[in-house]
Amino acid sequence: MRAVDVIRKKRDGHELSADEISAFVTAAATGTGWEKYQLSALLMAIVWRGMTSDETAALTRAMTDSGKRLDLSHIPGPKVDKHSTGGVGDKTSVVLAPLVAACGVNVPMMSGRGLGHTGGTLDKLESIPGFNVHLTEAEFRAAVRAVRIGMIGQTADVAPADKTLYALRDVTGTVECVPLITASILSKKLAEGIEALVMDVKCGRGAFMKTLPDARVLAQGIVRVATLNGLRCEAVITAMESPLGRAVGNTLEVIESIETLKGRGPADLTDLSVLLAAKMVRLSGVVSSQAEAEQKVRAALDSGAGVELFRRMVAQQGGDPRVADDYSILPTAPRRHVVQAPRGGFVADVDAEEIGIAGMRLGGGRSRAEDSIDHAVGIVLDRKPGEEVRAGDAVLTVHYRDESRLAAVLPRLNSAYTLSDTSSPPVPLVLEQVP
Amino acid sequence: MRAVDVIRKKRDGHELSADEISAFVTAAATGTGWEKYQLSALLMAIVWRGMTSDETAALTRAMTDSGKRLDLSHIPGPKVDKHSTGGVGDKTSVVLAPLVAACGVNVPMMSGRGLGHTGGTLDKLESIPGFNVHLTEAEFRAAVRAVRIGMIGQTADVAPADKTLYALRDVTGTVECVPLITASILSKKLAEGIEALVMDVKCGRGAFMKTLPDARVLAQGIVRVATLNGLRCEAVITAMESPLGRAVGNTLEVIESIETLKGRGPADLTDLSVLLAAKMVRLSGVVSSQAEAEQKVRAALDSGAGVELFRRMVAQQGGDPRVADDYSILPTAPRRHVVQAPRGGFVADVDAEEIGIAGMRLGGGRSRAEDSIDHAVGIVLDRKPGEEVRAGDAVLTVHYRDESRLAAVLPRLNSAYTLSDTSSPPVPLVLEQVP
Repeated sequence: MRAVDVIRKKRDGHELSADEISAFVTAAATGTGWEKYQLSALLMAIVWRGMTSDETAALTRAMTDSGKRLDLSHIPGPKVDKHSTGGVGDKTSVVLAPLVAACGVNVPMMSGRGLGHTGGTLDKLESIPGFNVHLTEAEFRAAVRAVRIGMIGQTADVAPADKTLYALRDVTGTVECVPLITASILSKKLAEGIEALVMDVKCGRGAFMKTLPDARVLAQGIVRVATLNGLRCEAVITAMESPLGRAVGNTLEVIESIETLKGRGPADLTDLSVLLAAKMVRLSGVVSSQAEAEQKVRAALDSGAGVELFRRMVAQQGGDPRVADDYSILPTAPRRHVVQAPRGGFVADVDAEEIGIAGMRLGGGRSRAEDSIDHAVGIVLDRKPGEEVRAGDAVLTVHYRDESRLAAVLPRLNSAYTLSDTSSPPVPLVLEQVP
Repeated sequence: MRAVDVIRKKRDGHELSADEISAFVTAAATGTGWEKYQLSALLMAIVWRGMTSDETAALTRAMTDSGKRLDLSHIPGPKVDKHSTGGVGDKTSVVLAPLVAACGVNVPMMSGRGLGHTGGTLDKLESIPGFNVHLTEAEFRAAVRAVRIGMIGQTADVAPADKTLYALRDVTGTVECVPLITASILSKKLAEGIEALVMDVKCGRGAFMKTLPDARVLAQGIVRVATLNGLRCEAVITAMESPLGRAVGNTLEVIESIETLKGRGPADLTDLSVLLAAKMVRLSGVVSSQAEAEQKVRAALDSGAGVELFRRMVAQQGGDPRVADDYSILPTAPRRHVVQAPRGGFVADVDAEEIGIAGMRLGGGRSRAEDSIDHAVGIVLDRKPGEEVRAGDAVLTVHYRDESRLAAVLPRLNSAYTLSDTSSPPVPLVLEQVP
């Protein structure tokens, strides 16, 4: 099989066979057989022509098979994960993993880091002194066995083809493509040794998918391709117009997550975490209805079982568990700046993407994957959309370290929110569920 | 300007600026600035989205400017070239260059070699003992000045971007794309220092363009883009269902060319050579009408001025001019095999592509650019489509060296022609002219 023939076949709009897809993926993983300029030509042809569900399923499987699958078969109980396509202020993983674990379900979670205006679970967890996301496979298994949670980054031997292809897509204009996105996400999830997956597909200006039709195509595709690969999967499409919760920035988001586990979190974050956690619990099979699952998750929240599991998870991965009760052990930004409302009214809008970019520019995120970050800085939404504000009230509080960085982001923050004279009805957070 | 942004722009269907196209071409020529996997991703996006005439003209210009332009400005008289998109048995360049030169028009011709089932002018000329197609620029200028003809290969410093891009297109499934084909052809022609160009766009199963609509798009695109670059250009679309003339194979085609210059050539080859030559003469401006030009070309043919110029051209480039009168100095295949008609009837069809492939497999052509070739072997069509044949008559004569190669191509040759009981009207050779 010659690379050029596979490329021409896709270029001409034909369906590739599993063997052809496998040759492409093996070449990407091993760096042999195809030249990189052939990989990128096929990637562009895939962006052009798309892929059927069968092709995407074969691509996913081949990418998983290019590396190692974690073996969690000796750990009793169901294993379920959640994955989000990335948003601003999205700390649901930190909240729901302990809640789901408290319901008796294992949560082996391989997460990513923040990039661009979106945050990443690993960065948030690393705000906690001592927290180690680089567990060996044995340590990871031990963590899941001990506390039903393991939170790690993607290891080098998981889906190596995805690493090559993702790096190539990034510089060849082939990122925005549903089959490629689907395979990239699911190939890593299949490697986790889970039986079920809940997808949170973010939708809106702060998300990768800007419109509901686009988000729907991705959500449906992921569910279909996961199912073809034997993974039970459901998706929720949620709005990402404004940040989720009030906190954006790693330390700030950890604090908000713990507050949420203590029952004092923002309503949107709490509700979404409970919904996603309940879906995970239901998909795990330990209960049979969504209502029952939500009841169980709420009980874990109300009883404090969730926050207790959070403490145990932190301790298990080398972090200081006192963080749950003493936020002062987290890195804190030395300075604060309050963005005040110039007049009274209602907050009509807070732009998630602008807040995300401002947080990154303050030092809390990365514009390139190799950048280092400042966990302490960030932005708190003192007012969320729909809330009333008087002239001079705080709308945003900026936690910062560097005056010049603050000065650089202030114009962006001042234009990131809008006020109106009348209160408008709240926008629903959950837009659709698939199926 | 980042490569990825240019790729994304084309991917999304937008028109690239001349600066963006120039950055891409400069990168291809110099090997810096863009990675090859970015070049190939943009090539595939161009195959997908196409290019406007302005984009294609900018691409052509940038590719020409990536290398050297020959300076023929000190040579008196108009300079005109002809280019064909490649066919089987197409030796018109060898015939028409002396005819056009005999009409007082310079013909500085940079030609290619055969690849796949199609032949190349350089290979045909190199059948002639001593003929040197590797002239220095000074030698080339001297040849044009002395005999009004120079026949050379593409030098390394002409359009180096085209060399990189063509090699990349060949292995990334991005060959079949009108704007890329147009720019590849015209960038080299613009570098020749000519004022006018006649294009012969071949159409049919033996050609790159299989259908008239496809050939028309290419012909119109080439004429438009040449004009945008200040090159007077006309195109003729000609049928390439059967080989042109009777001879296929380098020595055999040189002999047929000389015979044609002596007025004894096959009608189709003679007529097409005269038509194309006359167009060149008219475009050069030395006469004002096509009829007048044809008269002039026919006179050069009939008077022997053409064959005399052929002798001088051969001598000028180091070849043995006696070849025009003694074909025995050409390399000759040691063996012949006659394919006989199994029954009487009329030859309905001879498949140009099958004959071309058979000629290549006999050793007369290249499946890869680096293959060496045997100038002596080839195939003669003893009967052309429309001609009558009796049982046992020769339909094809194979000139070969190697028995095993003959055996390998015989099944192909036996199925390359079809007989019918009735004579069918001849298919027109010239399908359309542009404009």
